[in-house]
Amino acid sequence: MTSAFVIRNCRPMGGAATDLLVRDGRIVGIGAGLAAAGAAIEDAQGALLIPGLVEAHTHLDKTLLGMAWYRNEVGPRLLDKIDNERASRKRLDIDPARQSARQVVRSLALGTTHIRSHVDVDTEHGMWGIEGVMATRERYRDVIDIEIVAFPQSGLLRRPGTAELLEAAMRLGCEVVGGLDPCAIDRDPKGHLDIVFGLAQRHGRPIDIHLHEPGEMGAFSMELIFERTRALGMQGKVTVSHAFCLGAPDRELVDPLVAELAALDVAIMTTAPASRPAPPVKRLRQAGVRVCAGNDGVRDTWGPYGNADMLERATSIGLRNNFRRDDELAAALDICTHGGAAVMRLKDYGIAPGCQADFVLVDAETIAEAVAAHPPRRLVVKRGKVVARAGEPLLQAP
Amino acid sequence: MTSAFVIRNCRPMGGAATDLLVRDGRIVGIGAGLAAAGAAIEDAQGALLIPGLVEAHTHLDKTLLGMAWYRNEVGPRLLDKIDNERASRKRLDIDPARQSARQVVRSLALGTTHIRSHVDVDTEHGMWGIEGVMATRERYRDVIDIEIVAFPQSGLLRRPGTAELLEAAMRLGCEVVGGLDPCAIDRDPKGHLDIVFGLAQRHGRPIDIHLHEPGEMGAFSMELIFERTRALGMQGKVTVSHAFCLGAPDRELVDPLVAELAALDVAIMTTAPASRPAPPVKRLRQAGVRVCAGNDGVRDTWGPYGNADMLERATSIGLRNNFRRDDELAAALDICTHGGAAVMRLKDYGIAPGCQADFVLVDAETIAEAVAAHPPRRLVVKRGKVVARAGEPLLQAP
Repeated sequence: MTSAFVIRNCRPMGGAATDLLVRDGRIVGIGAGLAAAGAAIEDAQGALLIPGLVEAHTHLDKTLLGMAWYRNEVGPRLLDKIDNERASRKRLDIDPARQSARQVVRSLALGTTHIRSHVDVDTEHGMWGIEGVMATRERYRDVIDIEIVAFPQSGLLRRPGTAELLEAAMRLGCEVVGGLDPCAIDRDPKGHLDIVFGLAQRHGRPIDIHLHEPGEMGAFSMELIFERTRALGMQGKVTVSHAFCLGAPDRELVDPLVAELAALDVAIMTTAPASRPAPPVKRLRQAGVRVCAGNDGVRDTWGPYGNADMLERATSIGLRNNFRRDDELAAALDICTHGGAAVMRLKDYGIAPGCQADFVLVDAETIAEAVAAHPPRRLVVKRGKVVARAGEPLLQAP
Repeated sequence: MTSAFVIRNCRPMGGAATDLLVRDGRIVGIGAGLAAAGAAIEDAQGALLIPGLVEAHTHLDKTLLGMAWYRNEVGPRLLDKIDNERASRKRLDIDPARQSARQVVRSLALGTTHIRSHVDVDTEHGMWGIEGVMATRERYRDVIDIEIVAFPQSGLLRRPGTAELLEAAMRLGCEVVGGLDPCAIDRDPKGHLDIVFGLAQRHGRPIDIHLHEPGEMGAFSMELIFERTRALGMQGKVTVSHAFCLGAPDRELVDPLVAELAALDVAIMTTAPASRPAPPVKRLRQAGVRVCAGNDGVRDTWGPYGNADMLERATSIGLRNNFRRDDELAAALDICTHGGAAVMRLKDYGIAPGCQADFVLVDAETIAEAVAAHPPRRLVVKRGKVVARAGEPLLQAP
């Protein structure tokens, strides 16, 4: 699988048709006529070629993919969903190793080549989730890159012992420290954030914190995050996921936050939720803020939606932000590719000689069409290996 | 095609597996063992059976389906889109007859059996759109029901002569009188609504008016609509499409409007837009308001999105309204089936003996799964005729 091959007649980012030469897992050349170089040939038949999609926020440990339909009768509050899930895991046998593998294979078929997954750590399940997702990461290490966030889904201070478990998870090899709604869930923003930033400092790791808190409460939590980012010199190492407070209509509230995000190089992750205030991604990018996207939960006890498709997530970003112009749709795709790569600090990412050969062929006339219609993926290549064809993965899920 | 056949082993609305007997275009029996009655058999293999989907708001005359990709560089205002489209029609050869046929065939493949289409009437194109969509209606009359709204897309009073064209369109056989933003576009709400209601009165036809106006302006226009509905005895005969003003956060503004909608039996159509204030469909239904849904424009010069799938529109309704519970997802489907039927006053609609045999088989475990995942349609039957199979239409589009 380290042998050379040529993608013939492809259109990188919708440009002119050309050939692309892959060798030893890397793109080594782009140009007409490379198909004559003697290597094996994949005929793209004029398809678009885009970089591997980056899933920058999901929960591999909790999907119900491949399981019987889960009848959702859960209450409306965030805490209802948290408590329901914690109570359901063992009962429904939502095995993190098996379920994360299922989602990974689905993601691959849809062209995702990199995943950042939050994985629950709590006092009832300990390392069950972390160990399960780590087993999946090991199992598919040749065909997908997975980064794990140790995530205190059930709260940190409200469930004593969780901080110690997070510490253990980081020692086990998680790459990122997670956090969750310091005010709304943990009721002690200072205490919560001091633990999260302390863990990050001790382990020399970045932070990715869930912040659903809307309006002024979310702005307050974000200010506390800024203060610690500056004081600890963690510029460029913090991501705020969801950040609904940035979707508030009050520019007097939001504009100073956007300026601080840019100044401290704090990144924003959005799912572009249709029913929640959502970060204004165009304004954020114009201010120089790194913006990435994720599918969040894919069919789990929280909600029935989701199919792990990051190209369809680009569609959602377009719809949520009222993007209609071709240049706007290209920005939506950029968030789901280079934006994610910038947040995860991926090396050698992109469509250029020297880059890792992680890319996707899509049958579409333009980038805008690929985003608007998100058609099935013709071919998915990860590190020079064909991992999916005509929408079907070439790997087995359990 | 009027012969009898049996759908064996289907699950109407996700209930127990049973058989369904069709004869002369109608459902004549539902019950186990009907498969033994000697008629031809379609094996549903346990698939869900739902009524034909109702597309209650689209624009058949303006889709770009099957045409080269349209590069969208249009300005941000509503009027930019209106003017750009009017200027593009002839230049791009967006032929209403051909294009409406393409969308109709796509809709059929996705299980839509009834369509209400707004069709542009303006001083530049006259009856071009109306005649084109009427030709399509005639062409596919055996396999789909199409209702045409004469729609003054470019404004009524701002373009003199349009009222006379609307009159002509109604005489030509349009079923519904359309209107558009009496304040924001036509700048004369009294003048606009008097013409629209006058046309409806003269022709004895219902009204379906586009109302994008948000907040207090939309509420004002809606009040003017209520006043005329009451004064002219048009209860039950008026639909307000979009109705973004109902999505305002101010309950003091919205609640009285909801009460009046219920009192006057004025219906609401929503696309559940992700980037606009949207009518709260659950509250509306609880108040007794008829609510239907539509895809609106499907890939046109207004925007690049849309695939004519009303089951996916149910997904959008769920996402926009933060529906997660199974009962909520069932309501989203109800809006896209029985809700549309109630607005279009369809006769003999539904899954029961005596109803017209308009139904769809979907491979899903539950109604909620069908809505969340909107899988390809296994079989589509219209008036007892199989019109699509495995997601593919059995009819040709131009």
